[in-house]
Amino acid sequence: MSAMLAVDWGTSSFRLMHIGASGELLAQRTAEKGISKLKVTEIEPFLRQQINSIGPELSTLPMVLCGMVGSAIGWQEVPYLECPIDPTVLAGRLVALQDARPNTFLVPGLKTLSEYAQPDVMRGEETQVVGWLSLASNIDKERSLLCLPGTHSKWVNIERGRLSNFSSALTGELFAVLKEHSILARGEQRNDPNAFLQGLAASAQSSSLLHLLFSTRSRMLVGMHGVASCASYLSGLLIGAEVSAALKQSGSIDTVHVIGGANLLSRYKLALEYCGVHANLHDGDEVVARGLWRLYTASKHAGAVVQ
Amino acid sequence: MSAMLAVDWGTSSFRLMHIGASGELLAQRTAEKGISKLKVTEIEPFLRQQINSIGPELSTLPMVLCGMVGSAIGWQEVPYLECPIDPTVLAGRLVALQDARPNTFLVPGLKTLSEYAQPDVMRGEETQVVGWLSLASNIDKERSLLCLPGTHSKWVNIERGRLSNFSSALTGELFAVLKEHSILARGEQRNDPNAFLQGLAASAQSSSLLHLLFSTRSRMLVGMHGVASCASYLSGLLIGAEVSAALKQSGSIDTVHVIGGANLLSRYKLALEYCGVHANLHDGDEVVARGLWRLYTASKHAGAVVQ
Repeated sequence: MSAMLAVDWGTSSFRLMHIGASGELLAQRTAEKGISKLKVTEIEPFLRQQINSIGPELSTLPMVLCGMVGSAIGWQEVPYLECPIDPTVLAGRLVALQDARPNTFLVPGLKTLSEYAQPDVMRGEETQVVGWLSLASNIDKERSLLCLPGTHSKWVNIERGRLSNFSSALTGELFAVLKEHSILARGEQRNDPNAFLQGLAASAQSSSLLHLLFSTRSRMLVGMHGVASCASYLSGLLIGAEVSAALKQSGSIDTVHVIGGANLLSRYKLALEYCGVHANLHDGDEVVARGLWRLYTASKHAGAVVQ
Repeated sequence: MSAMLAVDWGTSSFRLMHIGASGELLAQRTAEKGISKLKVTEIEPFLRQQINSIGPELSTLPMVLCGMVGSAIGWQEVPYLECPIDPTVLAGRLVALQDARPNTFLVPGLKTLSEYAQPDVMRGEETQVVGWLSLASNIDKERSLLCLPGTHSKWVNIERGRLSNFSSALTGELFAVLKEHSILARGEQRNDPNAFLQGLAASAQSSSLLHLLFSTRSRMLVGMHGVASCASYLSGLLIGAEVSAALKQSGSIDTVHVIGGANLLSRYKLALEYCGVHANLHDGDEVVARGLWRLYTASKHAGAVVQ
């Protein structure tokens, strides 16, 4: 098994990894160059420049990419695959890039019918889930609930080692647009852990999110929190609403595996523990590297199927 | 009883009315000059100019103003009064404007503890409710649920002729910021009544609004509605979520009185009827004029208490 290049390329961020033959991370480059910020003709030159900055000798390595790079706004659109799906099936369905760099493969995103009877889609998170599955215990693989918080959070049901189905929540994007553009969090904001907890508590008391959103303002007006604490309260409210709805949908569950960056992990841990559920935390960067390597090594392109 | 001037001055719009001694509307001026668009020093000159445009002879008439003009960003901040409150008590608490135009009064906003155990506030809607009450039947005055849709919709419980309590929903503002700034409704949008109904139906199926918001995008991606219909679907989703939550909170109810402009009235009527509830529609401009006149005539400033 040779070394490889792995790329996690979302709407707003870019990460290139050089991964060794045993799956170890040898080097990486990150940039705030999400796929939405590049024209299609700029994608290949930007990528080549990033590879060269690690080492020009890497330019012929095989490469696997996941995320919005495989969407209509990306390098080449790759159709979604249907859930439920097994990681080895997904590995068998990597799509070779046309008319560009040879030996380069895109991971298809997934679609599903959510537990709320809505169609749903993901691009990128499936690779994190594959990485998580490759590290999980047999018990966890048998049945687990995963939470991947972010701009569009994903809640994934694992059953017998497969991605069974999932549902998205607009939490991160909603927080960002409300913080930036609404009346709710005007002026400079500070991180206020207490206001965050009050937001969690409020979200647990009512399922009327539209009413609770307004309470960000009304509580400030009556002096329950300061003007600069509105964003922290709002964050608690939204994360609490997301977590409460997901747990209510899942029925009795005692642990949720949360995959993400440090800041979100700590917030979701608080929200889950507030609901009496244990949070098992996993670093998103680690699992996505692991997932890209796993998908490549399990594909026919690597010349071997890894169990 | 003399004629009067009545002003409904919110965050984003202005309306001046010349009202006759019997409460009839004699003339009016509207402008897209919400109180948030004027410096405090610009308020009086702008108002004088608007009055003169109807007739300079009106400049000495008594005047009553409601809405955000009485807030911290307005002409003079007037403290909120507590619910429950009777219209005649509110009329007795009009606040005379200091250091400016004589014989000019501001209607205080109201505060409450909502049925969801959150503090809540309104400025302007209390005057619409007073107007509605002055026109309502004795049965409706005894016990009713009022919906005043808008940027921050208000749901008001009427009990024995009083404003008992109320709750706000961020519906209108959330729709505006998501339409303008999120990924959900990109590009030119068209009014699609069918997508609106699909949004209503989706909101009735689940209380997880964060998940449903994302369905605006996922349903478009899988072809369930067009790119240009996303905003209509989102509108149905948000209005449906607001109405469902309010009806769930209110228990058994067969009629809701909706007060607002024509476009919102028709949308909320559809949402209420979808939930099997009758919508009794009332023009917002009419009831606010009636409310301002009623508050003035019932105040000591008019020299008479109207029963």
